[in-house]
Amino acid sequence: MEIELTTAQEISETSRQYNLHSWSSQGGLKPKVMLGGQGIYFWDGEGKRYYDMSSQLVNLNIGYGNKKVIKAIQDQAERLAYSSPSFAIDVRSQLAKMVIELAPDNMQKVFFTLGGADANENAIKIAKMVTGRYKIFSRYRSYHGATYGAANLTGEPRRYTSEPGISGFIKFFDPYVYRAPLPFASEEAATSYYLSQLREQIIYEGRDQVAAIFLESITGSNGVIIPPKGYMKGVREICDEFGIMMVCDEVMTGWGRTGEWFAVNNFDVKPDIITFAKGITCGYAPIGGVIVSKEIAQHFDNNFLYCGLTYSAHPLGCAAGIATLEYYKEAGLIKQAKERGVLLGKLLEDIKEKHACVGDVRYIGLFSAIELVKNKETKAPLVEYGIDPEQTMKKIIGKLVAKGFYTYSHENSIIVAPPLIITEEELENAMAIMDEVLSDVDEMVKTK
Amino acid sequence: MEIELTTAQEISETSRQYNLHSWSSQGGLKPKVMLGGQGIYFWDGEGKRYYDMSSQLVNLNIGYGNKKVIKAIQDQAERLAYSSPSFAIDVRSQLAKMVIELAPDNMQKVFFTLGGADANENAIKIAKMVTGRYKIFSRYRSYHGATYGAANLTGEPRRYTSEPGISGFIKFFDPYVYRAPLPFASEEAATSYYLSQLREQIIYEGRDQVAAIFLESITGSNGVIIPPKGYMKGVREICDEFGIMMVCDEVMTGWGRTGEWFAVNNFDVKPDIITFAKGITCGYAPIGGVIVSKEIAQHFDNNFLYCGLTYSAHPLGCAAGIATLEYYKEAGLIKQAKERGVLLGKLLEDIKEKHACVGDVRYIGLFSAIELVKNKETKAPLVEYGIDPEQTMKKIIGKLVAKGFYTYSHENSIIVAPPLIITEEELENAMAIMDEVLSDVDEMVKTK
Ligand SMILES: Cc1ncc(COP(=O)(O)O)c(C=O)c1O
Ligand SMILES: Cc1ncc(COP(=O)(O)O)c(C=O)c1O
Repeated sequence: MEIELTTAQEISETSRQYNLHSWSSQGGLKPKVMLGGQGIYFWDGEGKRYYDMSSQLVNLNIGYGNKKVIKAIQDQAERLAYSSPSFAIDVRSQLAKMVIELAPDNMQKVFFTLGGADANENAIKIAKMVTGRYKIFSRYRSYHGATYGAANLTGEPRRYTSEPGISGFIKFFDPYVYRAPLPFASEEAATSYYLSQLREQIIYEGRDQVAAIFLESITGSNGVIIPPKGYMKGVREICDEFGIMMVCDEVMTGWGRTGEWFAVNNFDVKPDIITFAKGITCGYAPIGGVIVSKEIAQHFDNNFLYCGLTYSAHPLGCAAGIATLEYYKEAGLIKQAKERGVLLGKLLEDIKEKHACVGDVRYIGLFSAIELVKNKETKAPLVEYGIDPEQTMKKIIGKLVAKGFYTYSHENSIIVAPPLIITEEELENAMAIMDEVLSDVDEMVKTK
Repeated sequence: MEIELTTAQEISETSRQYNLHSWSSQGGLKPKVMLGGQGIYFWDGEGKRYYDMSSQLVNLNIGYGNKKVIKAIQDQAERLAYSSPSFAIDVRSQLAKMVIELAPDNMQKVFFTLGGADANENAIKIAKMVTGRYKIFSRYRSYHGATYGAANLTGEPRRYTSEPGISGFIKFFDPYVYRAPLPFASEEAATSYYLSQLREQIIYEGRDQVAAIFLESITGSNGVIIPPKGYMKGVREICDEFGIMMVCDEVMTGWGRTGEWFAVNNFDVKPDIITFAKGITCGYAPIGGVIVSKEIAQHFDNNFLYCGLTYSAHPLGCAAGIATLEYYKEAGLIKQAKERGVLLGKLLEDIKEKHACVGDVRYIGLFSAIELVKNKETKAPLVEYGIDPEQTMKKIIGKLVAKGFYTYSHENSIIVAPPLIITEEELENAMAIMDEVLSDVDEMVKTK
């Protein structure tokens, strides 16, 4: 391979000319160049270094330049770069086994995909095939991917271009307690309210009509919304009552992000299906998948599985997955994420107390969000849902990035989810930048 | 990475236990093990060697073990294994530029995906966004992928689990002249019939209602159905008349398979959108994409592109893509595919003449299918559409594979699409195996 583009300017210019960039209008784009990365840092076209405080798209859990995973990819490229999914190959079998060993103990088999969207696509089909039903429940304020099926699960604007919607895809409200329309007497009261609403909605849609309930175990890009105590168990019970498949989307939360292998482990719940991607290889090579329970696996012993894609269980993804999982174990990263999460939580609580613009902070492991408001009392969001004409959030992110703190925002929340390898010192230093920038936002809020 | 599974039996057993396998019921599966490959050959768990006469899933155009592409992946893994799609990186910019330089000259930008299904998913959304319409036309006997949107384009049973269908997805008949319900006086007459049917259907669906017409430039897995003379130009004219986006799915046919960079070049037609995957990296690392025209690119200068996936334009895929395209050029493979195609055509015509069971052979470049019949005169298919209780086709493929000729079938057709690097001698030797096996099928047919 010959690299023809060598200067940052050429790279950026050529990208403007030939690449369509995600989730943006292309006219004014000046794509930032990434030249390389190491550990929790990457550097741009000018050699400026950034703390990657979102782990790119909350996937780079092991950070940049992990030698073990790089070597696994290099070796596998040499051993066998491609084999169609119908073949058994060593890394494909081995990664499946490793995934099942780490998954909740009711799980039996994996269907590998390439990313998160197609994992959810296949989970939809599996739930429909197993139950013989076609209605699918999922939540507002969720993101499940951008292909038609995954987008129809999604409960926010990234769904709209995949409409008219698929019939039978039904939305319910998530337990977003901070902005609940009612004041709740307690966490238990909130849980009980949301569960009874869900149960009632299912009954009106038909007790025997619903194939699956999809939930992000913890809602990710829509603002790290952590379910209240007992909620996930309650959903499990509702699923059991009506013969509904409980599908937990762990694309963002899986593989250590929350201090557990899977976020559901925090709630001691066993779903029927888990979808995953991101952290299993940290993006070093694409792979995602659908983990299914013993019951579901058995169903397909005698029933045709109508699922397939050319790059299902791609050898490079499998090799990268094996190495990444090994690395998590060797480096004790899952436990470390939990420990660092305690510090992150403390820093976030300090920030909340200090800053007028911070309405809420939500965190678990190294997964967190800072929700910005105009007014702490009224909780008026800093920007209205779906409307930000002054690009306030973009400006705030711009300030963070200018100071070397890389992350992204969604509506009025800022995501903070650094690589799990971050040290305490690095975390403190990075959060000091956040603290500074939020002081500027406090000023904005005062004058509003 | 530690490889724990070393014997073929362990690999296969573990796969049975933990992997869900595509398009099959899992009970009786004994997945064949692939241990490695070189050139046009791969070998199984017993060390038995096979001609890969389908290039796996019609993607391994450069065969196994291509050193240049392997090295590109290895180097890129070291340089930068992951970067989120919003960044410009050298290989991402460069591959986009190379793709546009090879595409028809009306093309301007690329949105990179991971595979073929998500390429089509994004093409659907792009066509809807650009036209502001939502109806999508596609054909029976087509395959466009297995995610919800791509499956709803698909005109065969692999769609059914993605139903109830998406509203506005409409099917029309492809120009499958061999099995046309009418006898046509000439190829031109066939073309004129199919085009007038299509035009009439559009008018009844609404002249200003249709966003896009999706077509495989040459229908692939449904039996290499080559459009009659003038058909593609006629579709282009209909699209122009009604302001419809013409979308050519080149996932299987692109990158040299038909002896041209894109199959549309055979018909001298310029679509508005081309989707691709497979041959751009030959599966060495996953990448796919959507190529859009200058007009479409301009539209998104001022309009938001609602498309995105975590692994859009993955660095390994970009590097593998650059190396693969360079290799095609250096090795003159596109021209070679055309030349070898002449020999393949001759061998197939001989086979058709000789064997009672061969109803039709269709070929272009190194892309071909052999359609089996019970009776050459009546054209009665060897197995009924969607029904093969005696697993006749599976048995035929089993015989081929047992003799070292690896490929797959779809309904009553056998796909023959070897790597583009195949020599004349290898092609002749492999097709001699086909000839032998078809003699057995002749016997079956006689006694029916
Ligand atoms: C919870 C969740 N599900 C699914 C997806 C989609 O994954 P992908 O972008 O790999 O298609 C994402 C991506 O951010 C996600 O956060
Ligand atoms: C014409 C065509 N389109 C789309 C696809 C789907 O591609 P993928 O399997 O990479 O999703 C295929 C796969 O065989 C194909 O042949």
